[in-house]
Amino acid sequence: MKINENYSGLKDSYLFARISSEVREYSERNPGRHVIRLGIGDVTLPLPRIAVQAMIKAAAELGEAETFRGYGEYEGEPFLREAVCGYYAGEGVTLVVEDVFISDGAKSDTGNILDIFSADNTVLIPDPVYPVYVDTNIMAGRKIVFAGGNEGNGFLPLPDENVHADIIYLCSPNNPTGAVYNKEQLKAWVDYARANDAVILFDAAYEIFVRDRGLPGSIFQIPGAKECAIEFCSLSKTAGFTGTRCGYTVIPQELERGGRSLNKLWLRRQSTKFNGVPYIVQRGAEAVFTEEGLRQVRENIDYYLQNAKLITDTLEELGIWFTGGRNSPYVWLKCPGGEPSWDFFNRLLTQANVVGTPGEGFGENGEGFFRLTAFGSRENVSEAMCRMKEFLR
Amino acid sequence: MKINENYSGLKDSYLFARISSEVREYSERNPGRHVIRLGIGDVTLPLPRIAVQAMIKAAAELGEAETFRGYGEYEGEPFLREAVCGYYAGEGVTLVVEDVFISDGAKSDTGNILDIFSADNTVLIPDPVYPVYVDTNIMAGRKIVFAGGNEGNGFLPLPDENVHADIIYLCSPNNPTGAVYNKEQLKAWVDYARANDAVILFDAAYEIFVRDRGLPGSIFQIPGAKECAIEFCSLSKTAGFTGTRCGYTVIPQELERGGRSLNKLWLRRQSTKFNGVPYIVQRGAEAVFTEEGLRQVRENIDYYLQNAKLITDTLEELGIWFTGGRNSPYVWLKCPGGEPSWDFFNRLLTQANVVGTPGEGFGENGEGFFRLTAFGSRENVSEAMCRMKEFLR
Repeated sequence: MKINENYSGLKDSYLFARISSEVREYSERNPGRHVIRLGIGDVTLPLPRIAVQAMIKAAAELGEAETFRGYGEYEGEPFLREAVCGYYAGEGVTLVVEDVFISDGAKSDTGNILDIFSADNTVLIPDPVYPVYVDTNIMAGRKIVFAGGNEGNGFLPLPDENVHADIIYLCSPNNPTGAVYNKEQLKAWVDYARANDAVILFDAAYEIFVRDRGLPGSIFQIPGAKECAIEFCSLSKTAGFTGTRCGYTVIPQELERGGRSLNKLWLRRQSTKFNGVPYIVQRGAEAVFTEEGLRQVRENIDYYLQNAKLITDTLEELGIWFTGGRNSPYVWLKCPGGEPSWDFFNRLLTQANVVGTPGEGFGENGEGFFRLTAFGSRENVSEAMCRMKEFLR
Repeated sequence: MKINENYSGLKDSYLFARISSEVREYSERNPGRHVIRLGIGDVTLPLPRIAVQAMIKAAAELGEAETFRGYGEYEGEPFLREAVCGYYAGEGVTLVVEDVFISDGAKSDTGNILDIFSADNTVLIPDPVYPVYVDTNIMAGRKIVFAGGNEGNGFLPLPDENVHADIIYLCSPNNPTGAVYNKEQLKAWVDYARANDAVILFDAAYEIFVRDRGLPGSIFQIPGAKECAIEFCSLSKTAGFTGTRCGYTVIPQELERGGRSLNKLWLRRQSTKFNGVPYIVQRGAEAVFTEEGLRQVRENIDYYLQNAKLITDTLEELGIWFTGGRNSPYVWLKCPGGEPSWDFFNRLLTQANVVGTPGEGFGENGEGFFRLTAFGSRENVSEAMCRMKEFLR
């Protein structure tokens, strides 16, 4: 019996688990302190009322013989796949129902999609990055090359034609940097992918935060993307579904590699290793995509974007360099005085009782940077910004 | 870009998809015929009332700021992990909370668990078998050896000490054969696994149907199993959660291979590629494990077992050899006159308008056999048995 030795190449602890444990230790040593968490990217506002009502109705349906539902479709219920197509149509992207797979979240699918690709591919991942892209590829033993984000390129690395890659992860609006690619920049990636016979795995989990209509929320707004990209999206941040679990993955019918339809390969993978998302949750998600649902959702997103503005206003006042916070719930700041990010984390935790996420946890290029999130309550974000002004001035 | 070429080794179509399409075509050509489906293993009774009430309450909680919940624990909520431990305690098996991982179903986890094992392992799979075990291992490129079930061993193959295996799938009560291993037989597998440094992946999805107290519902009722087995279970068949999606996977702390804790490897896998089961669903599952929940569940299981008895009584009357149907919702019958199973499927569909599952779809050794399930309504099962008596007499 051999275990998967690639696991030995993983760092010991998942970033957020380490942060949790450091905060827990601090709080235990210092009871009574009000620690404000602007670290993990979890939402705080309750679910939109319309989604709750839909889920209550769906749960009741399952208790009656006439309306009970057993196994659903592996790809998701038609009513929800159609609702997703409708949402894309509103963004100027035409999809067919068969392009859309309902998932239990973008995290699962950005990892699971790798099943359909050979381990013998080179993966290109921006650095800094959401750790899941790196870890899932280490687990599978793939060769990884990094595209360096930095102050110079505003943490929006562009393709280097001297580097070959087969699989490319992009996340825009970015986690952790909050930076958003414009259409020209995304087009450079699409062109690179097509020239290299590569596939872009585009994580659009934060697309709802894009308010600047000139910026793309979907890679499919870029001509040619349907021949080279898979898009992952989630209701976690859109509608507060972090604990309710629903997302969607778009694999256009046009997308082929090695003469095979990636859409068909993924369907084969899902029908074998997945059994769909709970009916109740799919009804909740369907409600989110109605006109009234999107209105309720945008109200919540406004609230988080106003939190983000409180953070960016503070950083501007303090003269601290940052990205994000405008079309994104994340603000990525440069640690003052060139301080290493875990040192800054500890100082901010112990002296201001504010928790953020050290950039180093997102990759080598994240060192010296720090992530704050706008998902807290207004009161907590305001209080945290007062403390930061005092602490950093 | 290379796709995963192992997918080329998969059969074109998933068994149940082929059945669906054959039934759909028949129904379109013959409108007005009442086709009774005793094929796919989906439940028909509505969810237990107590689970519906708990899910309605949980959905409402998510709509209020005070009770909203975001990301849960990757391993599942403590309240549900404790409830699962309590359920096992009732079966005489002592677990700790850390042994239990909440999943979105046994199907997902019996496939996903393979991530923690090297592709360079030999997998032993009984034949006939639930197709997912075979397909997930073909996808990963593992060497597969089969343990043949047949009329002689009652479709309960035992280990062959001349065959080496590293990973062993067992399913008892079995899908598709309905056969149940007794304690001596399971002990032979545990002894074999320990002698071969192998791990047993024990699929207990149908344990709730075991009514004979002498038969084991959990492999952990066998001494030594905690050092060599992982158990998968599901609320799909237990509580009608096929469309509600919740299961659990038990990896004892004691279980190590290559000096690594499999429990810790799985936690690393889940925290990277999974984000937990919806809170609402976990509250529903918790309710199932209460005293009243289990009472409601057993009422439903009684109903299905009475359906199974209608089927086995019919087969006995017709003098047809079968396994299962006593501690299982599945009845596995020998096609009369040595008929190939897809031929029997077609004859039964077109002449009696009854749908079952051809044994061939479960592996080579399934040829000449046929699966019927007890999940239909009483009315449909009775009617189907009348038609079978007429058709087969």
